[in-house]
Amino acid sequence: MLGKLVLPEIRELIELGDDDTLRDVVNRWHPADLGHVVSQLSPAEQLRVMRLLESRLAAETFEYLDLETQLAVLGSISEQESATILNAMAPDDRTALLAELSPEQSERLLALLNPDQREIARRLLTYGEDSVGRLMTPDFVSVRKEWTLRHVLDHVRAHGRDSETLNVIYVVNGNNRLIDDLRIREILLAPLHAVVSDLCDHRFVSLNATDDKKEAVKVFRQYDRTVLPVIDSHGRLVGIVTLDDVLDVAEEEATREIQKFGGLEALDEPYMSTPLLEMIRKRATWLVILFVGEMLTATAMGYFQHEISRAVVLALFVPLIISSGGNSGSQAATLIIRALALGEVKLRDWWRVMRREVFSGLLLGLILGTIGFLRIALWSAFSSLYGEHWMLVGLTVSCSLLGIVLWGTITGSMLPIILKWLGMDPATSSAPFVATLVDVTGLIIYFSVALVILHGTLL
Amino acid sequence: MLGKLVLPEIRELIELGDDDTLRDVVNRWHPADLGHVVSQLSPAEQLRVMRLLESRLAAETFEYLDLETQLAVLGSISEQESATILNAMAPDDRTALLAELSPEQSERLLALLNPDQREIARRLLTYGEDSVGRLMTPDFVSVRKEWTLRHVLDHVRAHGRDSETLNVIYVVNGNNRLIDDLRIREILLAPLHAVVSDLCDHRFVSLNATDDKKEAVKVFRQYDRTVLPVIDSHGRLVGIVTLDDVLDVAEEEATREIQKFGGLEALDEPYMSTPLLEMIRKRATWLVILFVGEMLTATAMGYFQHEISRAVVLALFVPLIISSGGNSGSQAATLIIRALALGEVKLRDWWRVMRREVFSGLLLGLILGTIGFLRIALWSAFSSLYGEHWMLVGLTVSCSLLGIVLWGTITGSMLPIILKWLGMDPATSSAPFVATLVDVTGLIIYFSVALVILHGTLL
Repeated sequence: MLGKLVLPEIRELIELGDDDTLRDVVNRWHPADLGHVVSQLSPAEQLRVMRLLESRLAAETFEYLDLETQLAVLGSISEQESATILNAMAPDDRTALLAELSPEQSERLLALLNPDQREIARRLLTYGEDSVGRLMTPDFVSVRKEWTLRHVLDHVRAHGRDSETLNVIYVVNGNNRLIDDLRIREILLAPLHAVVSDLCDHRFVSLNATDDKKEAVKVFRQYDRTVLPVIDSHGRLVGIVTLDDVLDVAEEEATREIQKFGGLEALDEPYMSTPLLEMIRKRATWLVILFVGEMLTATAMGYFQHEISRAVVLALFVPLIISSGGNSGSQAATLIIRALALGEVKLRDWWRVMRREVFSGLLLGLILGTIGFLRIALWSAFSSLYGEHWMLVGLTVSCSLLGIVLWGTITGSMLPIILKWLGMDPATSSAPFVATLVDVTGLIIYFSVALVILHGTLL
Repeated sequence: MLGKLVLPEIRELIELGDDDTLRDVVNRWHPADLGHVVSQLSPAEQLRVMRLLESRLAAETFEYLDLETQLAVLGSISEQESATILNAMAPDDRTALLAELSPEQSERLLALLNPDQREIARRLLTYGEDSVGRLMTPDFVSVRKEWTLRHVLDHVRAHGRDSETLNVIYVVNGNNRLIDDLRIREILLAPLHAVVSDLCDHRFVSLNATDDKKEAVKVFRQYDRTVLPVIDSHGRLVGIVTLDDVLDVAEEEATREIQKFGGLEALDEPYMSTPLLEMIRKRATWLVILFVGEMLTATAMGYFQHEISRAVVLALFVPLIISSGGNSGSQAATLIIRALALGEVKLRDWWRVMRREVFSGLLLGLILGTIGFLRIALWSAFSSLYGEHWMLVGLTVSCSLLGIVLWGTITGSMLPIILKWLGMDPATSSAPFVATLVDVTGLIIYFSVALVILHGTLL
């Protein structure tokens, strides 16, 4: 267990200048731990530690650094050192780095690669930004179906060193077309004299290099795989994708989903590294859309101006009432959007959802309505704020709450289903979007209820 | 590629009663695909398909079914058939099933297991509900450090058949204490006469059976592993956990996070299977908290009752203004909560976040303020709704918007940081929570601005 790392100790060793001890310590660590520690050091300290690592470990550690730190390290080490690291890096991680650079920076680094690696890097960069090709590594072991398992294991021993994983071995024909995949367990469990074709069932799952990354996440989820082969349009095996890279894609997807939930366009980069004006643009878009929608509340309120001037007390509860509708709508939308995303709720379940939500909305509205009435009754016992007709005012507020919470719940739950049915992204009906929608209709409900209940007294 | 499955075809084969063809077809499929198809069939059809599967494939397919379908299938097949499936199931998936049942149901199924499997199942059920022990399977291969690799491979061939994965082989000492893990690649790449101890570096990452599941997610993420060993308090190897099970835990975590975002207590089960009253209770808790908080808006509005009655036009913009504060606050909170969760923003970055958000808030407020002013100017050209002082009203609304959007942005971004600093979950500052907070203060900002700008004219 190397989970517990002590940053101060490393700093102390660096300050002491005791390179021998430091070298001993850091070279015994796991690259993931080293990456974690190095990210937290100052640039000078980073350089010191990276230079003490054996070259293989240096490259592996480098893969665990974030882009910013990677660039800082590359900027301060020699060309020779950069070349060693870049040549030893896993091709997929290297592609991710090169893709983030300006064309000039990228060319400068490509020039440091040896011819083989340069060709690999250039080829991987030709795939589209969001394609599976960008995630793959061409380092895998492929075998032929007429080989014996003894031959396969000898081949692995001789040629498997650079392969990113040996958990799965791929069977290809003479044209390098993928014809099957064999988990290493199948090979290890069979007798050595067996032939590859004996193990083949020609059932395999593969990705296309031009597929969208999101597709890869789905396939990995569905088939519980840790590595998948990637083929080109001719069915030729061109690379493999491992689960760790796909997990990163899944995490990015979750972030986009959550950001849409919060009512803004998803950012393409981490919060801190998104250029400020770009971030503001992405936030402004939705904020303005919501604002323009919310302007309808001013219009709605305008229609009831006469009522408000006759019974100012009505205005006092406007924020309370519309926010309750918005909150209950947000809750319902959140539940349904997530359930749709996980496949727990299907379009055909809409009626079951509706029944559940109508019941929930009624009960939740009843709870809030009761609390609202008690609040007005309590205040009225001590103050004349709500006037002589406080009981009617309380009744108006309670009934409106019941109606608005029910309406918010129905809107929040049905809107994502309708969006999905229309082929749109259900997450577009974010909490703020639902709240805005419910605000406008909520006002109409409130004042209509008031007109009925307060007719002849306040109105 | 078996990704594209056609449900109608299966249904047709079932209707035709052509069991031979159906058997041929379904037995060639991947269990993940079969699980997907079977879930969508009627109970009678499910039974038909499951009975045609070879027993190993039946057990694997069963593992891909959701709990509800699993119980339905078990309820309709014979005890003998249930026993075959349950004995062949992966112990971790079986534990998940047994744990969801009532004690009587669980006992009834345990009685169907053979003595070995029953003992395993009982032992796994002794671990806490949220512990790593519940995720693990005791089917792994362990070797001794004095063995040659030839011996290791022979041992794997003889005893590896039941192991959930052969991608990693574990090295234990005489007391079954874990002393190292070897990836199969290391074994395959080394000469056959090498001894296990030659490959050992005693660097390994392990989980404790009593650790929280969430801990397992973190460790898998940090070290990019596909399988991890689990040890007991004495350091003895008791099982392994594979990434697919951990992915399910990660997905549950994401759901909880998103539900908290939406302003409700996280559900323990999928939307459709959560008992209605429990779901309402979880939603009511936060809804009532938010409602009680939002009551302060009625109090705040009460203080300005006099101003509202003198200038009813002020009331018309209340929903527009407070919702803008809420929306900008939700956006900021969403961004920061997610960035904190991913570690992109650290507590020590608070001042950088503050500067970014103050600038964003000012610019966003300026945009909304300008649109708001234009809207009022435009309406006033055609109607007398906003009276003769419409320009002052417009100025009041714009200045308030600037102040409230800025305030919402600061609150939304700093609240999660403060919560994290206090050791609380930043996600508690959900969008609705921030919106409620900003609503109350927003009203005070609005009416204060109005008192200054409209003094001597409307007020």
